[in-house]
Order: sequence, then structure tokens, then C-alpha cells
Amino acid sequence: MRQPELRRDPLRDTWTIFSEERRRRPSEYKFQKTTEALFDPFLPGQEKSTPPEIFAFRPANTNPNTPGWSVRVVPNRYPALRIEGQPEGRPDGIFDLMDGLGAHEVVIETPEENPLEDTSQEHIAQVLAAWKQRIIDLTKDARFQYISIFKNHGPLAGATLHHSHSQIIALPVVPELIQRMCHNAAEYHRWKNRHWFRDLIYHEEKENKRIVFENSSFMVLCPYASRFLFETAIYPRRISASFETCTTHELNQLAEALQITLKRLNATLEKPAYNINLINAPLCAMRDNSPAAEHIRQTWCWHIEITPRLGTLAGFELGTGFHINTVLPEEAARQLRNVNLP
Amino acid sequence: MRQPELRRDPLRDTWTIFSEERRRRPSEYKFQKTTEALFDPFLPGQEKSTPPEIFAFRPANTNPNTPGWSVRVVPNRYPALRIEGQPEGRPDGIFDLMDGLGAHEVVIETPEENPLEDTSQEHIAQVLAAWKQRIIDLTKDARFQYISIFKNHGPLAGATLHHSHSQIIALPVVPELIQRMCHNAAEYHRWKNRHWFRDLIYHEEKENKRIVFENSSFMVLCPYASRFLFETAIYPRRISASFETCTTHELNQLAEALQITLKRLNATLEKPAYNINLINAPLCAMRDNSPAAEHIRQTWCWHIEITPRLGTLAGFELGTGFHINTVLPEEAARQLRNVNLP
Repeated sequence: MRQPELRRDPLRDTWTIFSEERRRRPSEYKFQKTTEALFDPFLPGQEKSTPPEIFAFRPANTNPNTPGWSVRVVPNRYPALRIEGQPEGRPDGIFDLMDGLGAHEVVIETPEENPLEDTSQEHIAQVLAAWKQRIIDLTKDARFQYISIFKNHGPLAGATLHHSHSQIIALPVVPELIQRMCHNAAEYHRWKNRHWFRDLIYHEEKENKRIVFENSSFMVLCPYASRFLFETAIYPRRISASFETCTTHELNQLAEALQITLKRLNATLEKPAYNINLINAPLCAMRDNSPAAEHIRQTWCWHIEITPRLGTLAGFELGTGFHINTVLPEEAARQLRNVNLP
Repeated sequence: MRQPELRRDPLRDTWTIFSEERRRRPSEYKFQKTTEALFDPFLPGQEKSTPPEIFAFRPANTNPNTPGWSVRVVPNRYPALRIEGQPEGRPDGIFDLMDGLGAHEVVIETPEENPLEDTSQEHIAQVLAAWKQRIIDLTKDARFQYISIFKNHGPLAGATLHHSHSQIIALPVVPELIQRMCHNAAEYHRWKNRHWFRDLIYHEEKENKRIVFENSSFMVLCPYASRFLFETAIYPRRISASFETCTTHELNQLAEALQITLKRLNATLEKPAYNINLINAPLCAMRDNSPAAEHIRQTWCWHIEITPRLGTLAGFELGTGFHINTVLPEEAARQLRNVNLP
């Protein structure tokens, strides 16, 4: 088995992770024929069917890798990246190559078979606390530059297992997309001498057309340029570059915002497939005293994107980066606001 | 029905097209349940079920919108953009908005029910000639800044109709993705005083590991940082910024390269869904004498991307722009090269 490697697309400025190991996943090459797996490796009692746990919320009197846990983090059995390797790139002829260095973990969000949003708010806060713990721990490895936390729910959103889980990938480079977003927030700050994310919250409060839900710490919006039908995003009211600065109170408030948003999406769209993405800061923001890191700390803010996946991305989206949407966010927000949850 | 509009994502630098009109498409909101349409509006004899044709290859003794055509271009019945509107943007609070100005056309590639690759090479060259004609014509509208030509084949690639067709979308802005690619090719040129695309062809010839097919005018490669399983790209040997400079001979050669590549993909991957994307130059390159346009003419080169769609883009891809691939392009090219076509 070849070590995974990262190869850079010289024109797009993005990287592809090549991991032959992931080919062993049962679903590879036959997306269309994927059926519900008969065996659920994430159920309590099946702890031996995953690699040994890295982290868990479990009672003090239980042993690792035995039942009793409420949230459990394990290495991905089919990792895209591996912990061995050098963070330095090297040339490969006219191209750029790096070791496939990184971490790839799975957060088993609940011992139950139900989706995350059907657990309790306290439980969701525990999942978010697990995210926070893993970010703090992985940030200590100076070879990592960015941590992506995401959730694939449903086959149309790329999930290969039904059991509720999210994934953590630590990368040895900051993705071009994240760099671009940070850059644009910094440019806005330079030009206006105001914070983009503060202006966004101010503007959306005032317009009051795209708000789905609010509590004292968070605002849930249908974004102005929503790429996906009924896309939503969660913004913290306390501007902070990095998610892991959230207090326990804030994680509880975030759990509430997340749960209500997902339940309203389920009610409106008949339980759609969806992705959740934590858009966080490059890790330098929590590590460095460099001017670049200081700049990110002053102008960036973490947030969460929730994208229902009712269709597939087609040629136009791949070739231009544009999206086509048929429901304005004002209309999507109106529908989501009007859902009466039991 | 509200006029379509373009809204800019301030952090991503990309635009979303909001088109309520496209919601009338039968498949909207129910991707999962899409079944083969019973009625094929693109068959000969059904010309009245599309808007009147804009262009066709047909014998001189036949009338527009009657049978006899071999390739037919019509406005999209559910257009994402409309020909009415102003190309100037305007503020919408803290955001940016434009009229949904543009063109959205459908190229009905064949009167037959077979996929494009199962027609003749001469016929494929005719489809490419129709692309060229439409680009030349649409470029005359000074409000358009970029033309995207793409093909969705199969539901996993976003196709809603089975009948072989491609689509043309003329946009009032140059997509950030295309700007970035042009910028990177120009930066390479500035740094090396050499053309990226010339170096690419030189390097790939020499390495001879990722070539799928060659003829006198084109080279088909599995790209070094392939984002998708068995992704291929077609590069012209005669460097030119814009596709529409192709001669008749070159279109024939391109048709051969495209047909053989698609047939080999079909043989290797059991007729996968796929997208084809023509990555062309911003229209200024064919219109302006500005330094920016001159720069693109000197450093850019059109090419074609063919992306089989064996899976879906999941949360990680959406949140980082990275891709995960499980087959190295050297291996994919080896398999594709070794296909024996009948």
C-alpha cells in the first residue's frame, strides 16, 4: 500500500489527496449500488470493529473501547491521510507534491441509531465539546495548518455509513478556499476599518429577512448568496477567529441553534441529506505571534455552514464555481422560521 | 415570476444565480425520485416542444424547427439567466447584486437516442463546430464576459434529460475560478518566461506516465492532481487562449480525442456518469486591446476537462476545496491506455 500523498493543482491552487487505502472502503467504485450496510460498526458493543478510541465521553468507571460512552472519537479506518510524514513539500517535475501527512478521525456522535438532531440538546453540546477537544489536541502538532470538521448525512451528502458521525481531517496546508475567505475578510477590514462578521450580523438584524433562528450567542441565517437550496449558516455573536474558544455556555447555545435548524430543515424538506461544515481559522491564529496570525485573529470569525443536498453539483458548478439556486434565501428563511416544532 | 439575479458571496468571491424559473423543472426538489422521463423533447418531430432554434446543422432544403437537423441549438426552456438586463452590478446593503443577465442555451447533440460518443467522429466534430459558432456569436454581445460550455451525462452528473445534450451559459462576470487559473498561468509565465501549457505538454511527453491518447493536434492526460477518479483533460498542441480559434482540422482531431477518451472511460468504468467542461478564456481575450486581454492571449490556453462522477462531493470537498482520490492518475492512464476498442 502506497503512502498517501498530496498533489497540487497548479492552476486551481488546490490539492488532491491520493489515498489508495480509502479504496478498500466497501462503497468505492459503486456509488450507485450502495445499499444500507447490514452491520453497524459504531454501535455500543462493536468497539473492537473500529481502531482504538482517541477520546470519549464515558463514565469514569468504564474502560476505553467498551460500551458506556456517549460520544466516541476514533481514527478513521480508511484514513485519507496518515500521521507519519514530513510537512515540507517537494517538486515532482513541474508539479508540487507533499507527503499525505495529517490526521483523519471519526466522531461517533451517539450510541443510538438516531440522527444527531433527534438526541438531546445536552448531547449535541457534548459532540461539539468533542470537536473542541480534538481541535485543541491536534493544534499541538505543529505540522498541521488547518483542521476541517464536517459531517456527511445521507448518501447524497457523501455518507457511506448511516450511523450519525462527523469527521475531522487535519491538513498540512491551509486550503486555498480558507485563505481566500480570510483574505477577503481582512481586505474588508482594511477598507472599512470594521469587522465583516460584525457588519454581517448588524445588517441581517436590521434587514430581518434571512434570519432563521436566534439566541443570545448565535444567529442562524439563510446566506445572502446561498449556493444550495435552503442553505443555512450559524454565526456567533461574540466574534472570535477560532471555534475552540467557545465557552461551555456557548456550546450549549450552539447546540440549541444547530438542533432547531436541523429539525426545521427536516420538517421543510422531508429529512434531506445534508453536510455540516465548521469553517474555522488556520491554526497559526492560535499558535503564532506572526503578523499574519495576528491579522487573522483580528479580522476572521469561525462559523458553521449547513448545506442540504437535494441535487448534485453539475458541470456548470465544476467548471465555473458558480452555483444555481431556485429559492431565494428570504423565502427559504421564511419557510424555516414558520416551522412549528413539537 | 421574479427576474433572475446574481448574488455575490463576499468571502468566497463567487456568485450564485437565483432563478425561480428553473424551479419549474420537473426534477426540482426531488432529485432522489427522478425517473427516466417518458417523453423526449429533443427527438426529431418534437421540435415544437423546445423554444425556436438559434442555430442548426441541417440540409438547405429543410426549415428551422422541423426534422432533418443533425445538431440543433435552442434556448434552455428553464433558463438560469435571461437576455434582458444591465451588466452593471449594484449594492444591496452590504452585499453585491446583479441582474441575472446572460444566455442559457441547449445544444441537442444528435437526433438519435444514443450518447454522443456512439455517434461518428464526423458528427462529434459537428457538435464542436456548433459550440464554436455559438461562442463567436455570443461574444458579440459586449455585456457577456465569459461563456461556459458543459455537458452533464447521467443523473449523478446532474443531467435531468437522458437525450445527449450540452449547455452553453454566457455570464456577465468572469468566474473567480477562471480568473484564478488565468492568474496562475500568467504568474508562471512571468516567473519562468515560459508558457505553462507548453511546459505541461513537454513534461508529460517526457514523463509518459499520464498520457491516455495523442494525435497530431491534441494530448489527452490524466491530470497530475486529478480531483475525480479517472479524470481526464484534453490539451491542444497549438497553444491558443480561446477554443473558437480551432480550425476545421483541429475540430476533427478534437472529436477523435474526445470520442476515444469517452469510449475508453465507458469500457473501464461501465458507462459512468460524466461531465465535460470547456475551460475557455474570458471573452476580453477575443475583444480587447487592453493589457489584461493581451496578457491572457499570451499566457492562457483553452482545454477540456472530462470528470467521471462515481461519487458525490461530500462535506470535506465543500468546506476546503480539497478533493480525495483513490486512484493515482498514472494508474488511471495505464488502464485507459490499455483498453482495446472494437
